[in-house]
Amino acid sequence: MPHPEKTHADLLIVHGDVFTMAGTGSGYIEDGAVAISGNSIVDTGPSGSLRARYTAARVVDASECAVLPGLVDAHVHSGIALLRGVAQDSPSWLASLAPFVNAMSLDALQAGTMLTVMEGIRAGTTTFCDNSPGIAHSLPFYEKSGARVAASPLTSDAMPAGGPPNARLPEFSGEMRAFGLLETRDLIDRWNGAAEGRIAVQLGPRAADFCSEELLIEIRRLSEKHGLKVHMHLAQDKRETEQVWRRYGVRPVGLLERMGLLNERLIAAHLIRCTPEEVERVARSGASMAFCPSSLLICDGILPPADIFMDAGGTVGLGTDETSSNNGANLWSEMKAGCLGLKMKRADAAYMPAWKALRMATTDGARAIGLGHEIGTIEAGKKADIILIDLTRPSLVPVMRRPVRNIIPNLVLSARGGEICLSIINGSIVYENGHMTRFDEGEAMGFISKAAEEICRGAGREAAETRTAPFVMTENGEY
Amino acid sequence: MPHPEKTHADLLIVHGDVFTMAGTGSGYIEDGAVAISGNSIVDTGPSGSLRARYTAARVVDASECAVLPGLVDAHVHSGIALLRGVAQDSPSWLASLAPFVNAMSLDALQAGTMLTVMEGIRAGTTTFCDNSPGIAHSLPFYEKSGARVAASPLTSDAMPAGGPPNARLPEFSGEMRAFGLLETRDLIDRWNGAAEGRIAVQLGPRAADFCSEELLIEIRRLSEKHGLKVHMHLAQDKRETEQVWRRYGVRPVGLLERMGLLNERLIAAHLIRCTPEEVERVARSGASMAFCPSSLLICDGILPPADIFMDAGGTVGLGTDETSSNNGANLWSEMKAGCLGLKMKRADAAYMPAWKALRMATTDGARAIGLGHEIGTIEAGKKADIILIDLTRPSLVPVMRRPVRNIIPNLVLSARGGEICLSIINGSIVYENGHMTRFDEGEAMGFISKAAEEICRGAGREAAETRTAPFVMTENGEY
Repeated sequence: MPHPEKTHADLLIVHGDVFTMAGTGSGYIEDGAVAISGNSIVDTGPSGSLRARYTAARVVDASECAVLPGLVDAHVHSGIALLRGVAQDSPSWLASLAPFVNAMSLDALQAGTMLTVMEGIRAGTTTFCDNSPGIAHSLPFYEKSGARVAASPLTSDAMPAGGPPNARLPEFSGEMRAFGLLETRDLIDRWNGAAEGRIAVQLGPRAADFCSEELLIEIRRLSEKHGLKVHMHLAQDKRETEQVWRRYGVRPVGLLERMGLLNERLIAAHLIRCTPEEVERVARSGASMAFCPSSLLICDGILPPADIFMDAGGTVGLGTDETSSNNGANLWSEMKAGCLGLKMKRADAAYMPAWKALRMATTDGARAIGLGHEIGTIEAGKKADIILIDLTRPSLVPVMRRPVRNIIPNLVLSARGGEICLSIINGSIVYENGHMTRFDEGEAMGFISKAAEEICRGAGREAAETRTAPFVMTENGEY
Repeated sequence: MPHPEKTHADLLIVHGDVFTMAGTGSGYIEDGAVAISGNSIVDTGPSGSLRARYTAARVVDASECAVLPGLVDAHVHSGIALLRGVAQDSPSWLASLAPFVNAMSLDALQAGTMLTVMEGIRAGTTTFCDNSPGIAHSLPFYEKSGARVAASPLTSDAMPAGGPPNARLPEFSGEMRAFGLLETRDLIDRWNGAAEGRIAVQLGPRAADFCSEELLIEIRRLSEKHGLKVHMHLAQDKRETEQVWRRYGVRPVGLLERMGLLNERLIAAHLIRCTPEEVERVARSGASMAFCPSSLLICDGILPPADIFMDAGGTVGLGTDETSSNNGANLWSEMKAGCLGLKMKRADAAYMPAWKALRMATTDGARAIGLGHEIGTIEAGKKADIILIDLTRPSLVPVMRRPVRNIIPNLVLSARGGEICLSIINGSIVYENGHMTRFDEGEAMGFISKAAEEICRGAGREAAETRTAPFVMTENGEY
């Protein structure tokens, strides 16, 4: 029955503990509601008020649920997700990973994206800032799954170097460069703004040691021409710092500065080989930082300097990096790891409070990847990327609202991801009652298993010959 | 139909990736099986072999499951679990917690145990080394739930001191001491070995600053007389170190040594205020360490020195401490936090490999709390405490067995707890298909909610008056 006096919405979420993340805090609304029309949020406020003003095709009762903006994974390489757990606990993660990377097919890259999206959405991620080789082949799955993605290829024109590490500088290949730029331009033409606006294309030069000056110049031009973010590793390892120094006589941050890339369009991942002064310089340039605590601790035993970056006024997003290093695509794990790691580094229990971690995974993350105008908060006019979290799960009980509201510290430090009960992206329900709504998970899992089996077969000889650390631990019966 | 040529078992688990954790590694059996009779494991081996030799009342197909010893939480205060998330991000966790502690009832303590057991078992914990005030009132629930517990009261004879912190040394009360010892003796008489052997009683002096010499002497006597473990905080904060020094002219480790308590019967929690030399001294005494990484990082911004303890040859178990500090009762979170924290401290990605963390949560933990002869591995003769983990969940896919077996790194660094599909304690299934089998969770949740509401009501005025950090963050709209 129509209500002529009421506005019609497609979806009305009522009676939730709504954290809009708007403003400078958590934007809490007790017994809160959100009205969604099409792909956008049209209103928020107390449930009573919204129920009086809206009718809706579907009303979701969010009693005993937290209602949050969907989480933003600010740095992820979904393509290599199938290599989960094969290179941990190694002196060199990259060397242990190599036999498996060398056994990968295009199917395996697509399967990796499927796995990351399944794991991520189940754990509340709605946007993936995905920098992956072969990303063009994974975008049809992103389109189908309903997820939001800021996609960039992993572009490089450095030839694989033989001999011992750092023996000589790799040469750059004009052919690789041309192909990389072709791939990038094609991505922009075909995909930027596609899937009802859920797909944004970014530029993805791998790192300063993997890209010639010529390539970086072209990247800058494309970035300026199309107004695109440049999603790039920066000072991520010793090799990069050493090679850039030998080649150009500057360190990586200095090189990006010289190339005109150190600015508000840059999303800089990791920064672990920066001096504190360099971290501050990157932050002051307006570039954002992708902070991936678990991944860098597992691969290098180093916590990225997110504290210095934030203290210098920079915007930090949280990233899972990839399941092959992390070992998961779960931002709740990153929120906790980020809080614990920074409290430990600063020897200060009050540093990095839970609400700041939650901002990092929502509004700050959205701004960090250049989508702050569209997502990251629950506000009228934003795209409707919203998750509901079941607060009756043992990991989140009891819920207290006064004298202390304990929901955020419990979400950040105790939620496991499995408490997510509903996920909405671009106004559409993509996950509900334990199931993805837009694709067949069983079929995806079959595809993933097959690709993983092929990797195992292909990697066997090289892993045995190079005796990677995990291979030895497997042989010793420790793994 | 009876098979006269076969041995009868009550339960046969087949076709699992079995990690017995026996020996020095993970004790892996591919396509493995476990036979259980009564409350004990009677055999392990390849599925084909066990199927040929055993019939069973129930056969569990563990295809695509990891089969592990149940996890051991080596240090937990279940009683205060309802205070989850009310004191985080504070300069003083204890001061922020105080208004809520002061509002607790005996019902709230029991409710805390219920919540910890529900959360813990769902995440694979089968044994709780529980040092809680009012533990006697929680043991009936432990009995009912099917969980295994090493229980100790939180014994103290220090009078609450008025005035500013450390202004004067608290006095000791003969009455409190007498009551504490009475409670302890009664626990031993009534509960030690109860519930088909699932309940073990231990001694629980709170810490050296909370116990008089007289009390510690009595604890030592009881420990010697009954052969009981002494589960105790040691060098857990500055207050303890300062008060013990002022009172006795030694530091806490020196005091325990002098009192005859520094030996293989001691389970020492935290050790964060020890010098490296003191940590080594504790390890060499034969005492074990309860390592609670998340809790101490959240409360104090300090990672406990488990690395020094292990390097000195000591046995380390992993503990969640309490949901009011951690904020969860989930040992997967602790395994990951322990790995990340120690890799960070040592700046070494190869330090603290995943398989060592898993040993810490199983066999080492069992030995650390004095139950190594009964639990912690899957071996014939041990009690049947076993968990099955669904390896088809997105967080654990893909499973690779060669050239690298990636199951353990993925369990330790990516499992969230929700992958547990079956839990067996003392031969009995206590959790299956998402449900506890031995008690009504809805009823327990109702009891928990009611107790939590009373705490909120009771804590309101004091939290507002003392303006705890979380109270202020709530008021500011950050929480």
